[in-house]
Amino acid sequence: MAYRAPVEDIAFILQSVVPLAPVAATARFAEATPDTVAAILSEAGRMATEVLAPLNRNGDLTPARLENGAVRSSPGYAEGFAAIAEGGWIGLSADPEHGGAGLPQTLNVAVSEMMAGACLALQLNPLLTQGQIEALQHHADEAMKQLYLPKLISGEWNGTMNLTEPQAGSDVGALSTRAEPDGEGTYRITGQKIFITWGDSDVNENTCHLVLARLPDGARGTRGISLFMVPKYLPDENGRPGVANSLKVVSLEHKMGIHGSPTCVMSFEGARGWLVGGEHKGMAAMFTMMNAARLGVGMQGVAVAEAALQQAAAYAGERAQMGSIARHPDVRRMLACGRAEVFAARAIGLACAQALDLATATSDPECTARAAFLTPIAKSYGTDVGCRVADMGVQVHGGMGYIEETGAAQYLRDVRITPIYEGTNGIQAIDLVLRKMSDGGEMAFRLLDEIMDGAKAAQGEMPDLARAVWDAAETLREATVTMIESGQTDRLAGAMPYLNAFARVLGAHYHLIAARKGDEARKRLASIFVTRVLPRNAGDLAEARAGWADLDALPDAAFAGAA
Amino acid sequence: MAYRAPVEDIAFILQSVVPLAPVAATARFAEATPDTVAAILSEAGRMATEVLAPLNRNGDLTPARLENGAVRSSPGYAEGFAAIAEGGWIGLSADPEHGGAGLPQTLNVAVSEMMAGACLALQLNPLLTQGQIEALQHHADEAMKQLYLPKLISGEWNGTMNLTEPQAGSDVGALSTRAEPDGEGTYRITGQKIFITWGDSDVNENTCHLVLARLPDGARGTRGISLFMVPKYLPDENGRPGVANSLKVVSLEHKMGIHGSPTCVMSFEGARGWLVGGEHKGMAAMFTMMNAARLGVGMQGVAVAEAALQQAAAYAGERAQMGSIARHPDVRRMLACGRAEVFAARAIGLACAQALDLATATSDPECTARAAFLTPIAKSYGTDVGCRVADMGVQVHGGMGYIEETGAAQYLRDVRITPIYEGTNGIQAIDLVLRKMSDGGEMAFRLLDEIMDGAKAAQGEMPDLARAVWDAAETLREATVTMIESGQTDRLAGAMPYLNAFARVLGAHYHLIAARKGDEARKRLASIFVTRVLPRNAGDLAEARAGWADLDALPDAAFAGAA
Repeated sequence: MAYRAPVEDIAFILQSVVPLAPVAATARFAEATPDTVAAILSEAGRMATEVLAPLNRNGDLTPARLENGAVRSSPGYAEGFAAIAEGGWIGLSADPEHGGAGLPQTLNVAVSEMMAGACLALQLNPLLTQGQIEALQHHADEAMKQLYLPKLISGEWNGTMNLTEPQAGSDVGALSTRAEPDGEGTYRITGQKIFITWGDSDVNENTCHLVLARLPDGARGTRGISLFMVPKYLPDENGRPGVANSLKVVSLEHKMGIHGSPTCVMSFEGARGWLVGGEHKGMAAMFTMMNAARLGVGMQGVAVAEAALQQAAAYAGERAQMGSIARHPDVRRMLACGRAEVFAARAIGLACAQALDLATATSDPECTARAAFLTPIAKSYGTDVGCRVADMGVQVHGGMGYIEETGAAQYLRDVRITPIYEGTNGIQAIDLVLRKMSDGGEMAFRLLDEIMDGAKAAQGEMPDLARAVWDAAETLREATVTMIESGQTDRLAGAMPYLNAFARVLGAHYHLIAARKGDEARKRLASIFVTRVLPRNAGDLAEARAGWADLDALPDAAFAGAA
Repeated sequence: MAYRAPVEDIAFILQSVVPLAPVAATARFAEATPDTVAAILSEAGRMATEVLAPLNRNGDLTPARLENGAVRSSPGYAEGFAAIAEGGWIGLSADPEHGGAGLPQTLNVAVSEMMAGACLALQLNPLLTQGQIEALQHHADEAMKQLYLPKLISGEWNGTMNLTEPQAGSDVGALSTRAEPDGEGTYRITGQKIFITWGDSDVNENTCHLVLARLPDGARGTRGISLFMVPKYLPDENGRPGVANSLKVVSLEHKMGIHGSPTCVMSFEGARGWLVGGEHKGMAAMFTMMNAARLGVGMQGVAVAEAALQQAAAYAGERAQMGSIARHPDVRRMLACGRAEVFAARAIGLACAQALDLATATSDPECTARAAFLTPIAKSYGTDVGCRVADMGVQVHGGMGYIEETGAAQYLRDVRITPIYEGTNGIQAIDLVLRKMSDGGEMAFRLLDEIMDGAKAAQGEMPDLARAVWDAAETLREATVTMIESGQTDRLAGAMPYLNAFARVLGAHYHLIAARKGDEARKRLASIFVTRVLPRNAGDLAEARAGWADLDALPDAAFAGAA
């Protein structure tokens, strides 16, 4: 079945569950009127459904490939990219001064979800570019902004993030790429980078690499790292792509999925680069880019889950066997839980985006803290739901799910990268329980207050659901106190299950709001989430409390099978 | 890292947890002395590790392919198959009268696990052949046994199971393949079959298809189905492959994994076949074959989990980043839970095999009922653990896990078929709560008694673990009563989570025995299972009790995203 962008569900959430109204009420985002929002969602949905979704299989069957040192994209990807660029979708929330539309991130996140659901491998290109736009807006000097932002926003050029090196995975501080001043105000960058998404392509005219490298006087570790803009073609005096820079694509990775997205090994061989932000301040700029991308990746999970669920439901509905297998209790159980989790993950992601917008518009530190807290949850839970639902989609298809032609397997292979990139979900969980709870858990407790207030408010209308949400929040509060009081290693050992439990309570909270504001079907879906998904918290919270000692005590030999 | 067959773990389970001793104490299996068992495990382990494991990647990179109507196997597969055949592993538990070794199924299951862990795609060939041997032993006449069994046992020929048709997935009764008597005591078979594993190959000299088809007077539905032996080459008067039969491989499926296993679309075009068992008795014979295969598939899940876990642990141990990442709490948590689940699934599978052997040796209906009850649990839980641990293996590798060259992704792609074939796990759950509990839950209660007795016996030695296992069994007993008292649709809706919960209680039971009988590491692993895995039962049992009404009430439109 063809993907249909979930415009109605997103519109309902932005209307009633995580309303955009408070964002649109700010001076900064006054243009985000209900009419504008409706027009944008509908137009982006149409493009995703009609233009991008038909390209999804092409990328899988005909991966991007390297020919004479240049990447040749999958069939139709150039046209798909052009549609995204021409629609103005890349710069939807970018600064109007440089050609952006200046609209809320929330809208951008919603639109990105629809593009990713239609064609994940292609959507990665604008996603990375948007991260680069954000980094430049915050950290580049005016000349660089003037030169690069309009091109990135228009899609004439695209942006990449060059972080990982062969010898250093998540340990960025170990990087060995060097940057040497060349006496002309610029630098010469030398080193190899891996996992560079869309590191080269033929969909537009230039690729702009943001590269982390160490200056000669850079300290060891992350403190000595600087960020450089290293374009594939050096802009000439008119800002047009000119001389080729000294960099090349060494090879493309052979991956489990997202075959349409060229994942490059890049070699910088004295390539010319421009410093972005101050010397040795590279990590701050990179974090700006990564944080934006983390929420985006969470929504990629939601996106593929939506697509996989639609296909599985359509398949189950069409199967003649024993009537429609969608009426088969176990199949219906899987589909219903999947739908309930997709709603929860989408609402969490949009709530995170809403907090980002309010932070931008009001500079209220509470909004900043809220967005920071929700980001790892949105990333990790969204991508886990993506994998869970895509996996369920394969299962609902039975034997046909394992055959590549149905596309169910592609969703699973494609989405499987999302819990890994932009910081593995394990790293998100560490971020949550260490950095984001370094306030003594204050932000967590405020969110729990909000959730319990919501449950109290719903008590009269739907006492059973409200009670279950209240209880789950109360149990989570107790677990939060335990986490806060635990030593760091115990906390790290419990981080992932704790994050999962927090996500479900948030999801139940948004479901409860949806049940109150929505129709009968919304109430039923909320009840399914609370009855069938939320109780999984018992298992996760038991593990969150279990600490480190038993893991530490298990001899290493046990893992290798010699227990 | 190269796969190392888990000989020690299997030997420990057969020694102390699910002892083989009661099986070896029967007249039927008196040859299964401790020395013989040790020799067999060690020899099979050596072959798996040294001969089969090196072939695993070949199948993925160079899939089996169809050339001029014949299947050409992946490089090295013919040699690997020859090693399996020459080792006598195909007929390890087959009837000695026809060349088998007549040893317990339990040993066969253990050996099969090691072969599957080394090279799943290749192991499917003997697995299917073993199912066919079993079906012929029970249902064929003497002449057919004399002709086919020695060839199948020696590996000169192999066996397939032709069940599924394009228009009828799990609904076997809808099949349309016809069988017409040809007046010579044989039949002409006409129809198309899909998903035929190893439906053709060049690893040996003949392929014997057991084909379900309907005789002209066969009733509609499953009652009118008969089973036929349809060899690729008709045996001549000397029992050698002679004239080619009228059947062909139409195409091979392009699958997510197990690329080395040719999955054929078969066309029977008036092919000559011999009736197996009585007219219209095909389903009984096919069930013999499928039941044997179901346990085997469960062990395939365990097998790939073991392989994926070994690789992930080795990778984590080698990673220099932040020291070894195996000391990182979240990574260690994932590896430890994976190891604990692999042990549980393996013990359940071997317990099922033990019950089968005791049933064979003693004809005690209690043993038969026990094996029947444990089969769907072993299949479903084993394969779910397979997917869960292979998925974890990818995650532990981080970005490298998504790159095909590490092999972590192959394990996930390969094992993903196991929850689907030989009856999806949803079908296993239905089998458990309907057929296997049609005794009013008596078998379930007897197993729970045994588990609670075990917990009581452990109380003095390890009170915390014993208490947790006792409580979990008591909670499961209550849920079992609820299931029994529920209407059929409610029971079906709760079947899958109920099965999962039962598997974990069984797993905890075997861990508790291992903790009492084994060393310190065994105690620690048991504690990890009970602390971290068993509590997931709370979520599953909540869902098992949730029934059908809320699923029924959710409008179909909700699945498509229009909720």
